[in-house]
Amino acid sequence: MGVYKAIYNRRDIRTFLKNPIPIEKLKNILLAAHHAPSVGFMQPWNFILITEDHIKEQLAQIVEKERRALAIHYEGTDRDLKFLELKIAGITEAPLTICVTCDPFRGGDHVLGRNSIPETDIMSVSCAIQNMWLAAYAEGLAMGWVSFYKKADVRRILQIPYHIDPVALISIGYTENYPERPLLEIKNWETRKELQKLVFDNTWGKETDLLFNKDETNVTV
Amino acid sequence: MGVYKAIYNRRDIRTFLKNPIPIEKLKNILLAAHHAPSVGFMQPWNFILITEDHIKEQLAQIVEKERRALAIHYEGTDRDLKFLELKIAGITEAPLTICVTCDPFRGGDHVLGRNSIPETDIMSVSCAIQNMWLAAYAEGLAMGWVSFYKKADVRRILQIPYHIDPVALISIGYTENYPERPLLEIKNWETRKELQKLVFDNTWGKETDLLFNKDETNVTV
Repeated sequence: MGVYKAIYNRRDIRTFLKNPIPIEKLKNILLAAHHAPSVGFMQPWNFILITEDHIKEQLAQIVEKERRALAIHYEGTDRDLKFLELKIAGITEAPLTICVTCDPFRGGDHVLGRNSIPETDIMSVSCAIQNMWLAAYAEGLAMGWVSFYKKADVRRILQIPYHIDPVALISIGYTENYPERPLLEIKNWETRKELQKLVFDNTWGKETDLLFNKDETNVTV
Repeated sequence: MGVYKAIYNRRDIRTFLKNPIPIEKLKNILLAAHHAPSVGFMQPWNFILITEDHIKEQLAQIVEKERRALAIHYEGTDRDLKFLELKIAGITEAPLTICVTCDPFRGGDHVLGRNSIPETDIMSVSCAIQNMWLAAYAEGLAMGWVSFYKKADVRRILQIPYHIDPVALISIGYTENYPERPLLEIKNWETRKELQKLVFDNTWGKETDLLFNKDETNVTV
């Protein structure tokens, strides 16, 4: 089924071709985002489409500034050089970068569910971003999510009000380099964990044999 | 394409049949979650499978307690009666509830990207939850995400350590009642916003005609 194909093959891409994106594909991606679930149906998202080169250039600069600042924390560790080799952003290459924002006041003073867990607004926006990623894959496009920046810098460049949270910079475009495995796995930065060790039985830390090493078919839960 | 079908038709469900879930379907849903993107490939998620009735009962009680507490904030507003009519959780009905957690320390002291934006850990878990939702749809199952609870109560019942964040209670099962539109739209709680008003051109608040009211085909960005 198409859902699993997209979920398994989706990758975080940092290298883009200059080829432009058909507007219909972009519209499909944004509509997919807008059909994400949101707590209390608050739909807290906005999408700033960044196409102007001088704005992309400013964003790329603040991302590079943050990359250099973060590299300091890896100095002298076994990840030091690897960090420097990782390409962080394709903002200036990609034809389009989208700043996805979260408005915590969308939906009024009391939002169902958000009253109990405030961060459900950002969680809703994250579901929208995952929809964008799967839709981009379905459209034959590549997407990269950059989280190396200070929010204050992005607010200044894009004139975003203080109460709005610029939660992600998303670059979209075509790529020639769509890897089979996650970039951080290929670069030996991190490996995929074993799912079995992440699943517990009724209480935290209690192992389950429900899902794994089962010979029986027709087992149900 | 299957991706769009799942994205558009996925619904937040609160009414479940007692029919059990085949283990293969559950495994597919958890594998889909585990293939979500995560910042620095940190994979901060765990999944506590809740199948025991006495634990479901306790969770349902703390959700109901929170529902009653929240209702007080709607007293005297036009949403007062509407709130009381909403069914919040199907925890005791569904054969399975999954507590999805976030471990902010997964991946060590310095996680790529999370060093800049700490909430990217919860955002990663949210992408995993959206994958679960789309996979559940693909498997012919219904899913409901409850965010009406105090995290301290969930930690106590499921014996979750203090540093682990129980970000969601997810119920999964079959349903006879899979609505075409969001429940909160059907109940006139909230309406879907116009996408056009949520999309901006290069800076916050600047309207764009790039995507909408376009007669031309072959427009690109």
